[in-house]
Amino acid sequence: MAKPKIRVVPLGGLGEIGKNMCIIEIGNDAIIIDTGIMFPANDMHGVDYIIPDFQYLQNRTDLKIHGIIYTHGHEDHIGAVAHVLEAFPGLPVYATPLTAGLLELKIRDAGPKISKKSEINVFTAGDVLRVGSYKIETFHMTHSIPHCVGFAINTPYGYIVHTGDYKFDNNPTDGKNPDYARLAQFSNRGVALLLGDSTNADKHGWTPSESVLDAGFDRVFGKAKGRILIATFASLISRVQQVVHAAQKHDRKIAIAGYSMSRNVDMAQELGILEIPDGMIVDLNKAGKLPPHKVVIMVTGSQGEPSAVLARMSVGRHRQLEVEPDDTFVLSSHPIPGNEEMVSRNINKLLQRGAKVIYDPLEDVHVSGHGRREEMRLMINLVKPKYVMPVHGELRHLHLHAELAVDSGIPEDNVFVTENGGVLEIDQYGARLVDRVPGGYVFVDGSGVGDVGRVVMRDREILSRDGFLMVAVTLDRKSGKVIGRPDIISRGFIYLRESDELLDQVVETIEKTLHGAGRNNNGHRRDALQENLGKMLYNETRRRPMIFAVLNEK
Amino acid sequence: MAKPKIRVVPLGGLGEIGKNMCIIEIGNDAIIIDTGIMFPANDMHGVDYIIPDFQYLQNRTDLKIHGIIYTHGHEDHIGAVAHVLEAFPGLPVYATPLTAGLLELKIRDAGPKISKKSEINVFTAGDVLRVGSYKIETFHMTHSIPHCVGFAINTPYGYIVHTGDYKFDNNPTDGKNPDYARLAQFSNRGVALLLGDSTNADKHGWTPSESVLDAGFDRVFGKAKGRILIATFASLISRVQQVVHAAQKHDRKIAIAGYSMSRNVDMAQELGILEIPDGMIVDLNKAGKLPPHKVVIMVTGSQGEPSAVLARMSVGRHRQLEVEPDDTFVLSSHPIPGNEEMVSRNINKLLQRGAKVIYDPLEDVHVSGHGRREEMRLMINLVKPKYVMPVHGELRHLHLHAELAVDSGIPEDNVFVTENGGVLEIDQYGARLVDRVPGGYVFVDGSGVGDVGRVVMRDREILSRDGFLMVAVTLDRKSGKVIGRPDIISRGFIYLRESDELLDQVVETIEKTLHGAGRNNNGHRRDALQENLGKMLYNETRRRPMIFAVLNEK
Repeated sequence: MAKPKIRVVPLGGLGEIGKNMCIIEIGNDAIIIDTGIMFPANDMHGVDYIIPDFQYLQNRTDLKIHGIIYTHGHEDHIGAVAHVLEAFPGLPVYATPLTAGLLELKIRDAGPKISKKSEINVFTAGDVLRVGSYKIETFHMTHSIPHCVGFAINTPYGYIVHTGDYKFDNNPTDGKNPDYARLAQFSNRGVALLLGDSTNADKHGWTPSESVLDAGFDRVFGKAKGRILIATFASLISRVQQVVHAAQKHDRKIAIAGYSMSRNVDMAQELGILEIPDGMIVDLNKAGKLPPHKVVIMVTGSQGEPSAVLARMSVGRHRQLEVEPDDTFVLSSHPIPGNEEMVSRNINKLLQRGAKVIYDPLEDVHVSGHGRREEMRLMINLVKPKYVMPVHGELRHLHLHAELAVDSGIPEDNVFVTENGGVLEIDQYGARLVDRVPGGYVFVDGSGVGDVGRVVMRDREILSRDGFLMVAVTLDRKSGKVIGRPDIISRGFIYLRESDELLDQVVETIEKTLHGAGRNNNGHRRDALQENLGKMLYNETRRRPMIFAVLNEK
Repeated sequence: MAKPKIRVVPLGGLGEIGKNMCIIEIGNDAIIIDTGIMFPANDMHGVDYIIPDFQYLQNRTDLKIHGIIYTHGHEDHIGAVAHVLEAFPGLPVYATPLTAGLLELKIRDAGPKISKKSEINVFTAGDVLRVGSYKIETFHMTHSIPHCVGFAINTPYGYIVHTGDYKFDNNPTDGKNPDYARLAQFSNRGVALLLGDSTNADKHGWTPSESVLDAGFDRVFGKAKGRILIATFASLISRVQQVVHAAQKHDRKIAIAGYSMSRNVDMAQELGILEIPDGMIVDLNKAGKLPPHKVVIMVTGSQGEPSAVLARMSVGRHRQLEVEPDDTFVLSSHPIPGNEEMVSRNINKLLQRGAKVIYDPLEDVHVSGHGRREEMRLMINLVKPKYVMPVHGELRHLHLHAELAVDSGIPEDNVFVTENGGVLEIDQYGARLVDRVPGGYVFVDGSGVGDVGRVVMRDREILSRDGFLMVAVTLDRKSGKVIGRPDIISRGFIYLRESDELLDQVVETIEKTLHGAGRNNNGHRRDALQENLGKMLYNETRRRPMIFAVLNEK
């Protein structure tokens, strides 16, 4: 019997930073690796977040999907779980304890319809998973969250190794080094394909270990006169552990502001992943009564999110927390591309209120969780893959990772750069990029999933630039003349209340246009009026608001 | 007679990157240093650019304003010249030859009303300017554009030294080193105040010389198989010179795409600032007929501007230029904060079309024009000021520059961090920050200057997120009943054509609300309808579009 074909179908994370999701098919069997979300770009107006387009999976009714396996618990790898489970009710989920804990919170939030059917299977790094017909070996990797794994999926052509997000941290905060031995073993048994994290492919050298931050925090804690407020990702559990250590050494209590972070910390503590001495965590009210130099507050909003604690404090709009003169704010994070402006603004506003603000590179308070070029090279040399497909990164990162792979000895024809929806096929004749399946964005806006498409987004863009002007005109049915003064509504264009002259011109244009127009064709009169108003307004203001006219005969 | 008071009034560039403008008053006499523009942040919807708010100057009718002196020709230092000259017709302008050339183009664009009254006085670095009652010594500085100067303004309390934008480049492309001797001389004669560029205050060490790029370009030109397309700022004249040298060495012709760059190059060539061998510049059509490996094209759009050449090429929408497989694009620039996302997108789209894209730090193709911390320290040590006021930078840069000044031996009380509109006064008793004058943003949108304020911007923000829904309802005057089907217009909310169910709910809400309402109070009925529609739509969609209702009785 011929060996079944393998198809690797990336639905997210290729050509972008975020919403990682990848399908591995062996014949008619499939598993899903990760189901992440992505945050909208600055010109994706009104979008809350973006999920992968998985209509391909829904259309492939011939496929038997056996489950979702998760590499780690960051939003860009788990955030869309409820959306996928809604489409595939009861699909089993496989995750390490912390990842499972974070998934469970997310699934619970989605309501009983999804949560009561869900099945989370917990494994630990090193376990061999049997998922349907799949045999998957898991291996511990270091990143910026505990319980990170990569996968080696057994196939008839050798392993498919998926690194997940990783760096080679030889001094990780939890003492658990990357599983070099196992990675090297895979190479002995034959690795068909490496799917490797490309995020830092434009950075030379090695990413520093998370442990360099211990010294950074120690210096910051040593100098701070008042409170210390540390902003980081809500899911950066190991960072919280580092702050606990520093707080312990410098005799400070920790309070947590921000629902998501507080919930994650509780969960990680229950699972025994976070070790926090009894009595060290206090609530915000209690912290407010302690002397400032005895307090650390962990806050959300390290990406500048306007509704998170940090941004609210920076503009004086947090319910419980105000900036105090001796406060030291620490941004223990880097801005995700596109967020630089918001993060800078927060920093400047905090300074304006008299606080000190510390961020990388002023002090070692953040390092990337992704390996740089030398680590990518090490990964290739450890697993010795036949084929390489760079994943996780913008197209430029994928290209740079591919060049590095070639430079590391992989034949150029064996390195495949593609984007979401690009399908790689492996069979006895070799590997090649074949068809292209949908791999675009699905916007989540309010309760709508996918209902905001190109048309609505284009309209939002136009409205955001020049606003709109609407006129409602009543006409005499017989004479065709304008009755009374038209209703004029405008927003986002110019401030009409201070623009009498322009308003008069609008009325004049209405009268002139309708006076000469035929009486019967309402659609025609409306189009002419909209056109003339548009021209007049452009001439006067050099702006192009959307124009709407409603004609009403009496 | 008592010595007159000095007031330093920064109207731009402090607490932001851009729109630099500073007033120096000695008693009732004043001069202006620079009149720059700034590019809008991502959430300043529809704004073309921002100019400083100079109503302070317009209100100070007691001041005798003698002129504007310019440090150099970048947009963030000259861009608002026409706006200032419109408010102060005939105000004399002082600039070095290249800066004067760039100013002239800008003033000419503003039309005869402004240009025919304008008076540009050209000086060269080292000249002593007499501007009204002011005696101003000028000194050559290195930056990323030729003909850069700083100013030492004579005052009764010693010099006020304004650095302009600078780095200490000891190997500049035009061979003209910074004027160390003169800077040191000022210190002998006594410097009251240093106004120093803070842009790179968060970067350690020294900024590399512009000349390191020669080697970078040489490597890029040596490897490129097809055309080379170089994107940089239209005003980066010295970068153009470096490209000319590389093109000469590698036997390529240069074409220029983009109106602003082409105009600037012509002007700089006429002034003898750019040395280009005869026949080296060809037009785009001619370049299209040469073998690709004989061509360099300079293009605009290094900041990702959607309407510039680079972005148009990246989406296949340039009239004359298409991406070809062997093209090498070079981004000889860094993204201005806020532009990262657009620039990344351009890079990825060019890669998608099969081009190579090279940018810093992949290769030495750009260096900053601003000095880093060691250069700021050198500046302080050279001029030995009594007082220091950091200028040019976000608040965080100003703070870091101030800390560095203190660290360099300036007493803490002599270092003044303020933002736009913060006034520094110097008299025989010392120096201090006194009042605060308006120093905000004036938005230029289309032909409107300052008519887009907070209200319009807030509306644009709301429209950009959730759009609007408008209903026009005709009612029977007697019964109060709805006649016919209401007109419903919506944009940026959801795609109505695919939302029949929601449309039905809108109509239902209209009928329910108006049916129960009293007949006479139109305003009241409209408010109730708008409120009910808003509630219904939020319940159904979790979005909050703007809602407008127009009621019309028949």
